[in-house]
Amino acid sequence: MSKIEMAGQKKLVLITGRAYPELAEQVAAELGAELVPTDARTFANGELYARFDESVRGSDAFVIQSHTDPINEWLMEHLIMVDALKRASAKRITVVAPFYPYSRQDKKGRGREPISARLIADLFKTAGADRIMSVDLHSPQIQGFFDGPLDHLFAMPVLIEHFEKHLKRDDITVVSPDMGRVRVADVWSDRLNAPLAIIHKRRDPTVANQASVHGIVGDVKDRWCLMVDDMIDTGGTITKAAAALKEAGARGVTIAATHAIFSGRAPEYLSQDFIDQVVVTDTLPVPEEKRFEKLTVLSIAPLLAKAIHEVFEDGSVTSMFEGAA
Amino acid sequence: MSKIEMAGQKKLVLITGRAYPELAEQVAAELGAELVPTDARTFANGELYARFDESVRGSDAFVIQSHTDPINEWLMEHLIMVDALKRASAKRITVVAPFYPYSRQDKKGRGREPISARLIADLFKTAGADRIMSVDLHSPQIQGFFDGPLDHLFAMPVLIEHFEKHLKRDDITVVSPDMGRVRVADVWSDRLNAPLAIIHKRRDPTVANQASVHGIVGDVKDRWCLMVDDMIDTGGTITKAAAALKEAGARGVTIAATHAIFSGRAPEYLSQDFIDQVVVTDTLPVPEEKRFEKLTVLSIAPLLAKAIHEVFEDGSVTSMFEGAA
Amino acid sequence: MSKIEMAGQKKLVLITGRAYPELAEQVAAELGAELVPTDARTFANGELYARFDESVRGSDAFVIQSHTDPINEWLMEHLIMVDALKRASAKRITVVAPFYPYSRQDKKGRGREPISARLIADLFKTAGADRIMSVDLHSPQIQGFFDGPLDHLFAMPVLIEHFEKHLKRDDITVVSPDMGRVRVADVWSDRLNAPLAIIHKRRDPTVANQASVHGIVGDVKDRWCLMVDDMIDTGGTITKAAAALKEAGARGVTIAATHAIFSGRAPEYLSQDFIDQVVVTDTLPVPEEKRFEKLTVLSIAPLLAKAIHEVFEDGSVTSMFEGAA
Amino acid sequence: MSKIEMAGQKKLVLITGRAYPELAEQVAAELGAELVPTDARTFANGELYARFDESVRGSDAFVIQSHTDPINEWLMEHLIMVDALKRASAKRITVVAPFYPYSRQDKKGRGREPISARLIADLFKTAGADRIMSVDLHSPQIQGFFDGPLDHLFAMPVLIEHFEKHLKRDDITVVSPDMGRVRVADVWSDRLNAPLAIIHKRRDPTVANQASVHGIVGDVKDRWCLMVDDMIDTGGTITKAAAALKEAGARGVTIAATHAIFSGRAPEYLSQDFIDQVVVTDTLPVPEEKRFEKLTVLSIAPLLAKAIHEVFEDGSVTSMFEGAA
Amino acid sequence: MSKIEMAGQKKLVLITGRAYPELAEQVAAELGAELVPTDARTFANGELYARFDESVRGSDAFVIQSHTDPINEWLMEHLIMVDALKRASAKRITVVAPFYPYSRQDKKGRGREPISARLIADLFKTAGADRIMSVDLHSPQIQGFFDGPLDHLFAMPVLIEHFEKHLKRDDITVVSPDMGRVRVADVWSDRLNAPLAIIHKRRDPTVANQASVHGIVGDVKDRWCLMVDDMIDTGGTITKAAAALKEAGARGVTIAATHAIFSGRAPEYLSQDFIDQVVVTDTLPVPEEKRFEKLTVLSIAPLLAKAIHEVFEDGSVTSMFEGAA
Amino acid sequence: MSKIEMAGQKKLVLITGRAYPELAEQVAAELGAELVPTDARTFANGELYARFDESVRGSDAFVIQSHTDPINEWLMEHLIMVDALKRASAKRITVVAPFYPYSRQDKKGRGREPISARLIADLFKTAGADRIMSVDLHSPQIQGFFDGPLDHLFAMPVLIEHFEKHLKRDDITVVSPDMGRVRVADVWSDRLNAPLAIIHKRRDPTVANQASVHGIVGDVKDRWCLMVDDMIDTGGTITKAAAALKEAGARGVTIAATHAIFSGRAPEYLSQDFIDQVVVTDTLPVPEEKRFEKLTVLSIAPLLAKAIHEVFEDGSVTSMFEGAA
Repeated sequence: MSKIEMAGQKKLVLITGRAYPELAEQVAAELGAELVPTDARTFANGELYARFDESVRGSDAFVIQSHTDPINEWLMEHLIMVDALKRASAKRITVVAPFYPYSRQDKKGRGREPISARLIADLFKTAGADRIMSVDLHSPQIQGFFDGPLDHLFAMPVLIEHFEKHLKRDDITVVSPDMGRVRVADVWSDRLNAPLAIIHKRRDPTVANQASVHGIVGDVKDRWCLMVDDMIDTGGTITKAAAALKEAGARGVTIAATHAIFSGRAPEYLSQDFIDQVVVTDTLPVPEEKRFEKLTVLSIAPLLAKAIHEVFEDGSVTSMFEGAA
Repeated sequence: MSKIEMAGQKKLVLITGRAYPELAEQVAAELGAELVPTDARTFANGELYARFDESVRGSDAFVIQSHTDPINEWLMEHLIMVDALKRASAKRITVVAPFYPYSRQDKKGRGREPISARLIADLFKTAGADRIMSVDLHSPQIQGFFDGPLDHLFAMPVLIEHFEKHLKRDDITVVSPDMGRVRVADVWSDRLNAPLAIIHKRRDPTVANQASVHGIVGDVKDRWCLMVDDMIDTGGTITKAAAALKEAGARGVTIAATHAIFSGRAPEYLSQDFIDQVVVTDTLPVPEEKRFEKLTVLSIAPLLAKAIHEVFEDGSVTSMFEGAA
Repeated sequence: MSKIEMAGQKKLVLITGRAYPELAEQVAAELGAELVPTDARTFANGELYARFDESVRGSDAFVIQSHTDPINEWLMEHLIMVDALKRASAKRITVVAPFYPYSRQDKKGRGREPISARLIADLFKTAGADRIMSVDLHSPQIQGFFDGPLDHLFAMPVLIEHFEKHLKRDDITVVSPDMGRVRVADVWSDRLNAPLAIIHKRRDPTVANQASVHGIVGDVKDRWCLMVDDMIDTGGTITKAAAALKEAGARGVTIAATHAIFSGRAPEYLSQDFIDQVVVTDTLPVPEEKRFEKLTVLSIAPLLAKAIHEVFEDGSVTSMFEGAA
Repeated sequence: MSKIEMAGQKKLVLITGRAYPELAEQVAAELGAELVPTDARTFANGELYARFDESVRGSDAFVIQSHTDPINEWLMEHLIMVDALKRASAKRITVVAPFYPYSRQDKKGRGREPISARLIADLFKTAGADRIMSVDLHSPQIQGFFDGPLDHLFAMPVLIEHFEKHLKRDDITVVSPDMGRVRVADVWSDRLNAPLAIIHKRRDPTVANQASVHGIVGDVKDRWCLMVDDMIDTGGTITKAAAALKEAGARGVTIAATHAIFSGRAPEYLSQDFIDQVVVTDTLPVPEEKRFEKLTVLSIAPLLAKAIHEVFEDGSVTSMFEGAA
Repeated sequence: MSKIEMAGQKKLVLITGRAYPELAEQVAAELGAELVPTDARTFANGELYARFDESVRGSDAFVIQSHTDPINEWLMEHLIMVDALKRASAKRITVVAPFYPYSRQDKKGRGREPISARLIADLFKTAGADRIMSVDLHSPQIQGFFDGPLDHLFAMPVLIEHFEKHLKRDDITVVSPDMGRVRVADVWSDRLNAPLAIIHKRRDPTVANQASVHGIVGDVKDRWCLMVDDMIDTGGTITKAAAALKEAGARGVTIAATHAIFSGRAPEYLSQDFIDQVVVTDTLPVPEEKRFEKLTVLSIAPLLAKAIHEVFEDGSVTSMFEGAA
Repeated sequence: MSKIEMAGQKKLVLITGRAYPELAEQVAAELGAELVPTDARTFANGELYARFDESVRGSDAFVIQSHTDPINEWLMEHLIMVDALKRASAKRITVVAPFYPYSRQDKKGRGREPISARLIADLFKTAGADRIMSVDLHSPQIQGFFDGPLDHLFAMPVLIEHFEKHLKRDDITVVSPDMGRVRVADVWSDRLNAPLAIIHKRRDPTVANQASVHGIVGDVKDRWCLMVDDMIDTGGTITKAAAALKEAGARGVTIAATHAIFSGRAPEYLSQDFIDQVVVTDTLPVPEEKRFEKLTVLSIAPLLAKAIHEVFEDGSVTSMFEGAA
């Protein structure tokens, strides 16, 4: 008989880009593993380079990168690392992008626009990615942009666990900051068994054409408002919404979001009096200079670690989120 | 010199499947063309067949099919026709699917679900489609499911033109039948300069857990409510919404939708007293037995014909919808 | 060292569509497994849906569907299930299509025809299929339509085993019902060590142009004719062939075929006096109303189960058919 | 307005490999064109090289090669030329392979065989071919091996035209040399309105197991037999068939075939007394040393030229073969 | 007859990213065209956006971007623009990247490195690019990284034209700054009919192991040295080479390079006394702060414009460089 | 629970084409395995055929072929074997091509040339290859032509080991036979800690235009010159270089090369007096008639065997070449 046989073996390796290595280190610690030592560099003209210092041949590789500003740098580094893994004979490559980049450009709002969120999926596929893992996609249809498995994780259990400890009040109302995010707020409302309110800009019937006011659907007076969103970028919309809630008689306003982009003056906006608490996860790094007193940053690492473990062991990621959607 | 040269020529051909040939015939009439004579058949065991009776070599081919029930038959016929065109050397193949099939399965709501709307896009690509043309996609992200140009048309101008003739009243309020469709209603509200109202199911604060009521955001008392949606399938949701509007004091209720699926008892539901008018387009065929007194069916053919004309002549489809989104 | 290692594991899962679940259940029973509980449904407008109730992550998945009428429904369901498996991280997906759909449209007989049998292979590939398993392809070239492994099984051993028990006569002649199927009959003739006869339509030399008669090549007088074919659709051709055999003095006529499509009045035709026995397998379901007295339906499940077992354990499917082609 | 516009232009260029440049020259002459001057060479170690001496940018390029022995050399040269055309910005590339190489390996006859005919189609696609043009494919299913248009030409009109001049006898019988080629003979029989006969190897009922004789179905006594096939390779089968026909009383035997491979001692075999005429086309070169007295070689160039002309001008290739299949 | 016919038309459109719009404007001016008005923006979190203000449907689009620092930004913008063009139905998309990004990472120098230059080609292909145009690739094998036409332009004619006016001296020696660039210097030497010298680091035979000196092959004493390279990045290597030339008795040193990356302190290095002139092109922008007295920047726009013109009109790009390689 | 589980198993199989089976046999012997019995044949018209006599299902298959003259035959056989493996359900297919065919056509030197080295990579990919293994690529950029892992082995350790035994002299100088191969010689010089010399054709400053002489950079007088190259084809260049070294006073000349193509009169050239030794490996077969007295042929089989072992066991190929590049 001409064959040589041996028992199959599975090997998990964790790799990180330079955007937010602390997150990957925490994931590794949770898994009891170490990151693959990697030489990642930026050349004088801005070109990037990466090389792994250990063999990754035949491995089940997870490449973690947080797509924070400068987002295109980190995206390119992510792609280059996937290319290097493919050429180094990794068996399976999973892109772990806790915040999916360009997720808001998920359609042509007007003619001759790109659909960059689809482009991103295709770029990763081309570089060699077999799978993607991400947290709280801006729109769930982005799952369909990738031609392969995309593990969609939800930060809600992490946030809920925090609130169950720190916000045990009977008078919570879940609030959606605008019409487009009602779907998310609705899930929270279900999960917390709390009433739902919605803020929307609507025409003032007493004024002509343009004027709009922040209407509030649902009862917020004397309630503690838990306003939920997938991301906080410049913080403009959500800050105005918080102000409107207080004006409408809310007892308190807590803002919960998965992705803390915190561009520009977001920390300043969010520090204003009419906001009582802001709770986010660290899918994106929140450096010291962007932190402020009312802010709580929860670690997303345990969730990522658990999902990676399930994927590696052919368990079930779905079962991690019974009841979530 | 070894070349043979001649002037380039563009040839438009129109082809239709058997789901709703009348629509394609109207499109052809609008364009001053004729449909390519086609032999399409169903064999004894249900397998389909199609063959074109004229050369389509080098043509800019548009294959029109309405994805009505039995939807999988017509989908397969559509795919087979695209395959036949590809093998017959058509230069460019545009799939015209006024109603995009499986558009509601555009994400994994739960683990281990398909994303059939993406699958459909890939099947057409595989068969040989270069482009897709569709009307009022259920979610705009579906544009990103196709790896190529997708001309997204809007039926709103057709419907608006009708209402401007037949509904010239000052007391219109645009109503979204549920939270998920607010985006569409908002565009209408803008376009008609009319106030917006939203119907949503919300928890009854006076009752435990399960109870939900149809809450109405915005003022509908003594207003003529124009309730807009992209499709009417079984008609259950929109009928209940109409009833709620009348209970809340609405003077009248007009329902406007692009895609008249009208499954099951939809015509019966929509004929009830508390609905005054139903206006749809014929992206899907509305046979005699599904028509009822209050129903108006507008022709989508002129819109399709204009878009095909723009595509063929390298004009602009975007400019057909200034102001729409 | 930064890796986490563990022993590799292989997991076989069996999934069935709704066309003929009994077949898949028998296959599962043969293998000592159970089908993955699956929620498969048809929506009001004819769109299909499928979801698996258990994790299939990392599995070697076999999706069984019998492509019976309504064939396009079951084809689409098959494709949707493959898409769902791909997105649910199945490791390898094998499409088990005992009867390959659209196998007769395997070439362009005339200009501007589709080659639907190739299209089917591409659609499965696009949806995510890694492999195909099928029984008695209409033409063996269809193997070349799929870009990957296609396990081509033969029902002959199943049928032969039956005939060895029930047809132990010395006077058998194998008959091909027309010129196009001689290849199959020749294999049977070899295997049974029986003479071969062929029925063909030929011009009557005594009559002008059009007239054709059923000529019979080979000796059938006082012989028991075993007429073999890959499928029986409407039964027209094979019934006329049987009549011709009896007219030519055959003692008996047994018809053997793999795929019992039995469209239209096939059961009625096949029940006629000049046919003594009809033996088929259940690659396609044969419901009660299509069964008739002379019909014997053999189970194809053991063959499929054995082949699936060989594929899963990296054994040899070829060795199951020593001598067959 | 920012565009620069100009009238479109189509340019046909003809290119040939080194296998049989005379054929391409005749095609060019028929079309009133010249071949693109090309530098094609073989290096010392057998590697091939090709470069075009004129710009082919934007052209509709037809690359002609006859796949004669050494067939793998010419195949590789063909692929390299297609690659060079793709990289030189040809607009559309049509592979003209009058004899489709490896056409007999069109299925897996046994386990672990290649399907080389499909592989060939994929290799051309990969190199950059948009279309294929070929004459009398060994099996029509090969059309389905290419993912794109394949223009399938038939040599029958060329051969028939010859016979109408040189074989105007009333006593012709069309003969298929074996069971596998009946489909082709049947078309000839229809076209010539002549009776059909078939030669087949069958078991001698009077002898045990192995013995086979050349049976002849149909009347050949005192008839002039026109035996048709797609190709003559070593000539073994067809020569034996011819002998059998004469033994059975045929007045004369004419052999007609499209592809004159003439391997080994084929010319010698075909020169034997019991064969009266052999008529072939020059899809493959027939060098002087393979010619013999009874042989007539008809030029396939006019047919190829006409087909290329139809493809270039978006005419109809199908209409060149009304009645053929 | 069912077709609608019209004369074909070709439309050239020019588009630019934001890296160096002045270059694209000059190209447009040379061609007598205007750039397509484009809305390109960077969002707060660094994500990019682009939209064309005019229809590009059916156009032959050339998208020009100079890959200068921040190179990953401009690369991503380039990709996004290509995606937008593809979805806006451009007929053909040519990526014009005068400096090919990541061209130095064109191989795995060690295990587990990426091949980023290949990745770049694949990313452009995936986004929708049909063709690439670039100037003086770092290694000519990069042409083979793209699966399609890549027009490789040479800046040498532009530089030579300059030197023929400003450097008409008889005592020029062409110098290659290191072993790896000899191929380029050799072409210059041929073209100028001037002797060649090469600088290389070699071991000092008088010292152990490590010591290396700048050896100079060829005669440079009392010669005017024209040192040529494809790019100047930090300027370190070429500056040391210039110093060595002067030490060896060169009368003067002129440095000529195509791509003026000028990272870090390059302008300072290049201003040193032992360098007499530096001549570059503007494939990359050379902003005021990087300019210095001895620097001459030649416009690459006329070359790009001519090449674009040849591509659009199906002329010959090759013939623009008779004699170059 | 519905799954069937079993432990994973890995199976290595070795397959060889007919170009140089002895090499594969040695590799197998090194690994303690046997080659898969294979039926490979050439048909009368030159078409090739291959079939494996044992199941390769689920295997990690390595297909070894030496691309010697007739190179296109062996290339096609290699492709056909890969196709057969793919269709026979091999799990992973590695093409082992010790000498990469067409490696010198790795760029367009002029317009309208092919890039055959890229084409080869694509052909293997299309046939079904997952990986490529090769020794001493002509240019390292060829790694980037394959979209997947390419294990690039170096013969230097094999050659060095030989020289360390047989050439232990202190007076070695490493010589590059021309400018284009300096990179390789430089690595040798580093590894042997020996000085470097370079031969180049340069203009004779005393003669007009055309005249060139073999200049020698570096000191070779009274030195033993070790001239290294990747391949010896016709041997013309390297023979002239050897003569020049002796003329310049070299004590001895040893030629070392990986690939012994030995076309035409190469053995004769290399036997001349001024060459002392020639050392090559057997990546290509060196038949008796090409061997000569001064020639030493080293076996490459141990290197290939070790690399295959590392790939199969997910070890590290990179670590086999510490220090090499």
